[in-house]
Amino acid sequence: MNAAPTPHLAIDLERMQANIARVAEAATERGIALRPHAKTHKTVEIGRMQVAAGAHGLSVATVGEAEVFAAAGLDDLFIAYPLWIDAAKAARLSAMTARGASVSIGVDSVEGVARLVHAGLAGRVAVRVEVDAGHHRSGCAPAAAGEVASAAARAGVDIEGVFSFPGHAYAPGARERAARDEAEALRVAADSMRAAGVPPQVISGGSTPSFAAALEIDSPVTELRPGVSVFGDAQQWELGTMAPEHVALTCHATVVSHAGGRLVLDAGSKVLGPDRAAWSTGHGRLLDHPEARIVQLSEHHAVVELPGVTTAALPALGSVVRVVPNHVCTAVNLVDELFVYDRGDDADPSARWSVAARGRNT
Amino acid sequence: MNAAPTPHLAIDLERMQANIARVAEAATERGIALRPHAKTHKTVEIGRMQVAAGAHGLSVATVGEAEVFAAAGLDDLFIAYPLWIDAAKAARLSAMTARGASVSIGVDSVEGVARLVHAGLAGRVAVRVEVDAGHHRSGCAPAAAGEVASAAARAGVDIEGVFSFPGHAYAPGARERAARDEAEALRVAADSMRAAGVPPQVISGGSTPSFAAALEIDSPVTELRPGVSVFGDAQQWELGTMAPEHVALTCHATVVSHAGGRLVLDAGSKVLGPDRAAWSTGHGRLLDHPEARIVQLSEHHAVVELPGVTTAALPALGSVVRVVPNHVCTAVNLVDELFVYDRGDDADPSARWSVAARGRNT
Repeated sequence: MNAAPTPHLAIDLERMQANIARVAEAATERGIALRPHAKTHKTVEIGRMQVAAGAHGLSVATVGEAEVFAAAGLDDLFIAYPLWIDAAKAARLSAMTARGASVSIGVDSVEGVARLVHAGLAGRVAVRVEVDAGHHRSGCAPAAAGEVASAAARAGVDIEGVFSFPGHAYAPGARERAARDEAEALRVAADSMRAAGVPPQVISGGSTPSFAAALEIDSPVTELRPGVSVFGDAQQWELGTMAPEHVALTCHATVVSHAGGRLVLDAGSKVLGPDRAAWSTGHGRLLDHPEARIVQLSEHHAVVELPGVTTAALPALGSVVRVVPNHVCTAVNLVDELFVYDRGDDADPSARWSVAARGRNT
Repeated sequence: MNAAPTPHLAIDLERMQANIARVAEAATERGIALRPHAKTHKTVEIGRMQVAAGAHGLSVATVGEAEVFAAAGLDDLFIAYPLWIDAAKAARLSAMTARGASVSIGVDSVEGVARLVHAGLAGRVAVRVEVDAGHHRSGCAPAAAGEVASAAARAGVDIEGVFSFPGHAYAPGARERAARDEAEALRVAADSMRAAGVPPQVISGGSTPSFAAALEIDSPVTELRPGVSVFGDAQQWELGTMAPEHVALTCHATVVSHAGGRLVLDAGSKVLGPDRAAWSTGHGRLLDHPEARIVQLSEHHAVVELPGVTTAALPALGSVVRVVPNHVCTAVNLVDELFVYDRGDDADPSARWSVAARGRNT
């Protein structure tokens, strides 16, 4: 390779399809519904493959993302966010449902319910109550789910269920604990909703790191929403959630310098994303050189160390290497197109897909 | 405020124009030419204002950025990067110069010179030799500048000068030291080029943090290339390079939750950028609450702590706050439009500018 100009984000189609199938089978075997989080790929073609593989709809992060997928006919959507509804957002949501989309949204407070009702959305969108399972971001206390749900029910809002995002699974050794925290939070929340006379139809859990654990333990979840699992990334590799041979998205980058006996690549934070968790071993990795680490990342340069490799043995100047971004959701959000390679080592892409929901932050 | 949907990136036009004027005057007073780095704003309207204020051209990071500005008539351009020239890049560069643009590019090795010549660019683009001033990214050793320049001269390539980027100025207390390192590296490099019979016409230094120091010390620089100074950001605020009253770009974000006695905002890493230097005090700050810190940042949520502020005294649910991103270059690269407010506290934007060079990574 490489005919397409670097840097660009490249999908290994064979691997991606295998990732989609593996996750779908694991969920189906246990009778769990799948609603993959499309914020990871933001791409209509990939959403269609997930639904064809058995997903019963998609999760999205914003109204803007929902609009893109709904317009493409992928219109069974859950906006997994406690939206603050103003008149403009209400009008956009109403327009989507008027065209036949099924849209549910997150809510985590009685005030949020009141706004939604005030904006005229009762009967137009369903809600799911968000509860905090230990990530401490948004979401009400699990025991308060019944109060939020009954406020919604009294106001004529459809209650679809309850959900959480166990983001604290994003740390080494944390995924089983986070899955158990989530199971317990959702159990408490569901009980609270039943006691309030508003039993949840859907009990939804999230996250790629906690996905496998959530399937193994005794959990009340009826639906899961993994996002990153479609591609994998260096974080999942280092968390042990996905092996490097499952990584289906890389950045093709050209070696532009051997300065200091290291590789300098033409890919920086503006295509890889600058994410670096405290526990990450670097700013990203090379798929074909597991020992390599990006030790320095600027906007258009990555400096890569290959321990024990002499300058003469480095990948040659002008050659193309495959970089695994730390956090694939961030990387995808930087580009307008994904280059599709039928197999990872093909010389040329067979297609380019538009990242149609890129930058839809509102 | 706020009529425009949140989150969005908002320019305070009055402050931005003052930043442009202040930097231009400081350079002009000392007889230093200015070539601001347009990778920060990627916006034609802002490039035009910089040139109108006295900049003698723009710096850019990629061929794609150069194409956008050249097409808008801002065609005195330096691509401050040791480009690895392939046939496609050579054709694009030639097309720009054939249309009358003046384009110079970085080169940091004899091999790079050879590729450029092989690609037929001798006589079409000028080069500047990049030297490493202590940031240890790209750039040859300062004493090797003469060797690279004379290889270029022998091959009939125009040598415009020498440049460096003192990126190690991005740390607390480091800017004076970095400016001195850069001055010394450029002095050695310029001497090496003179000794090789290829004296530099332009001796160019970079970086917003080192800008003021570079003007104060005895330095051989004839040109400076600050980027961030047009907007400022939380990094510059914390480095002491720009005061908060000079911050001219913020993200307008809505308070969506008070969960845990903290603010949860509808702006996350997908609009603020995930950059966080080891020395940053958080994931970003609030312009109107200097004591506040973003303590947790997800893709579409920021969690903000305001020490000593009770929940009742927090900015109200549904209100809009102004977030200062850690690294403004990364934030701007996430959005398709910048919302222009004539004054920072205006209720409505007076214009929207296209981030025309966004995502031009190749």
